[in-house]
Amino acid sequence: MSETEISTLGEFGLIDRLTRDFPLQNSSSKKGVGDDAAVLDYKDKEVLVTTDLLLEGIHFDVRYVPLKHLGYKAAVVNFSDIYAMNGTPRQITVSLGLSSRFTVEHVEALYSGIRLACERYGVDLVGGDTSASATGLVISITCIGEGEKGKIVYRSGAQPTDLLCVSGDLGAAYMGLQLLERENSVAAASGLPDFQPDFAGKEYILERQLKPEARKDIIEELNKAGIQPTSMMDVSDGLSSELLHICKASGVGCRVYEDKIPIDYQTACMAEEFNMNLVTAALNGGEDYELLFTVPLTDHDRVKALPGVSVIGYITKPELGAALVTRDGQELPLKAQGWNAFYSSETK
Amino acid sequence: MSETEISTLGEFGLIDRLTRDFPLQNSSSKKGVGDDAAVLDYKDKEVLVTTDLLLEGIHFDVRYVPLKHLGYKAAVVNFSDIYAMNGTPRQITVSLGLSSRFTVEHVEALYSGIRLACERYGVDLVGGDTSASATGLVISITCIGEGEKGKIVYRSGAQPTDLLCVSGDLGAAYMGLQLLERENSVAAASGLPDFQPDFAGKEYILERQLKPEARKDIIEELNKAGIQPTSMMDVSDGLSSELLHICKASGVGCRVYEDKIPIDYQTACMAEEFNMNLVTAALNGGEDYELLFTVPLTDHDRVKALPGVSVIGYITKPELGAALVTRDGQELPLKAQGWNAFYSSETK
Repeated sequence: MSETEISTLGEFGLIDRLTRDFPLQNSSSKKGVGDDAAVLDYKDKEVLVTTDLLLEGIHFDVRYVPLKHLGYKAAVVNFSDIYAMNGTPRQITVSLGLSSRFTVEHVEALYSGIRLACERYGVDLVGGDTSASATGLVISITCIGEGEKGKIVYRSGAQPTDLLCVSGDLGAAYMGLQLLERENSVAAASGLPDFQPDFAGKEYILERQLKPEARKDIIEELNKAGIQPTSMMDVSDGLSSELLHICKASGVGCRVYEDKIPIDYQTACMAEEFNMNLVTAALNGGEDYELLFTVPLTDHDRVKALPGVSVIGYITKPELGAALVTRDGQELPLKAQGWNAFYSSETK
Repeated sequence: MSETEISTLGEFGLIDRLTRDFPLQNSSSKKGVGDDAAVLDYKDKEVLVTTDLLLEGIHFDVRYVPLKHLGYKAAVVNFSDIYAMNGTPRQITVSLGLSSRFTVEHVEALYSGIRLACERYGVDLVGGDTSASATGLVISITCIGEGEKGKIVYRSGAQPTDLLCVSGDLGAAYMGLQLLERENSVAAASGLPDFQPDFAGKEYILERQLKPEARKDIIEELNKAGIQPTSMMDVSDGLSSELLHICKASGVGCRVYEDKIPIDYQTACMAEEFNMNLVTAALNGGEDYELLFTVPLTDHDRVKALPGVSVIGYITKPELGAALVTRDGQELPLKAQGWNAFYSSETK
């Protein structure tokens, strides 16, 4: 790979080079990159806005996360927030802070991942800001989407007796991160520059960590099945933390059955290898980007028929609190021990 | 000032505390902070989106920029981009990366500036992301606004014979920065912890650097006078750089008269004190956040009647290029020597 210092292109040259391969795909994108602001036209839809800030050393480690994957993930986690409102992502702005060790080729690799995500999900890049950084890589992405009036799903609509549902499986992204961190330590200890970690049989948990997908398919399935969730959010901080958000916003309690939480085989194997509590990993792991949602009890049969959706519990009156029902029938209060950037910076 | 470590509140506690004093002011803000995304309703308006990333050590120096001013400026520079499209800012999202030396009180000071800006300009805070940072302060703000269909002004509409206009005066923010940097060096050299810099008679250039305003008033005046600019942008990188943007986007050239460039008395005094070329400071200084725009020649009388607007030149055919006409009638090609974060990080 050739190495081109960013200062040879300058800020505007870099932006031109990075954004030229992003043709606009949506009729709502009237004007993208190249003016003081992007211009969007949403007609009679409602506009959804979400934003994420990713910082080197806190949210990612470039020693074991390829830049293309990092770009893909940074975009997809924002799309996930728009789907979690029952909306469709349409535009993103991407702001980057780049320290002097990043070359044009590095930034192009990052953007190739962003471009792949934009192509797959039909989203337009419409703006951003690119700057030098005194230390490390900073990625700030804002995603704008649209929702049908009256169809947007908030965290606040869950009602007692509603069924609690989650898509896919949980804990895999967290176990993937544990694996990456271990292999990175082993590689460092080996002292061999060409040390090759052995990831055979662990591809799924790695992919869940490095290249997560947003559950566009689940939103489409729910829509086709005529199911309008009463509340919804995506699982980014961990199931426990998200359940508490829904309970707080909706003014309800909940019961989640330990044996109903969907967990993949590779996640279970890895937890055993690391001697970790599997349910703790699934409850608190985070970064799964699955959809957690509630539906009225009357939708029971329809939601059970959906592939890739598990019913894991139900909503209760608020005075019953939020609790996990263990395999032996005990009730343990749920606590938000999810991934928290303010703790992780101190405890890692 | 008491000192509260951010980890005592956690991410969600911090967000609650920071955002509780931001009541929503716009009917287009349907749902603000507290879900996966904000929900906005723009009915039959067009949506404008702009974003800025500010990094400690590159864009600001907390040794001589009070955090409240920094918050105010970070918000206002985004509003300025929306006004520069002839739009009205309505919502912002604020993402922060905070290193461990920042306390809750520091972040509250920063937010008090953001809040003041939001109140003055009638803008709602509707979301964001708050995280630890391994090094320094990161501020990423995205602003969403609205524009009337058919009334949005791009950089690309300037036509030969159009008049080139600029609001306010130029170069003051740059000279304010020079003054702050000098006084900071003097303070450091003095070794006195209570060293008091002498800013008497220099309040204007300091305020232009520390607490710039967006020219909402000029947009309102233009609208009242029935003037629809053919092109417009705000002066953030410096007049030369912005003129070249308009010429490139519109496919035109321009002539700017040195003796028509509006410069304040304090800016001129400071340039003399620093033995700097005054016109260079006004052409390349940046951070003035004035509006640069073009109007048809037929609007000459109406635009001349506007307080706080100077006609500084005119648009030409593209083959004539972009040039400064000096006091003695020479034509010097304009060059973009504006403030560039990729150079400043290396040359400072």
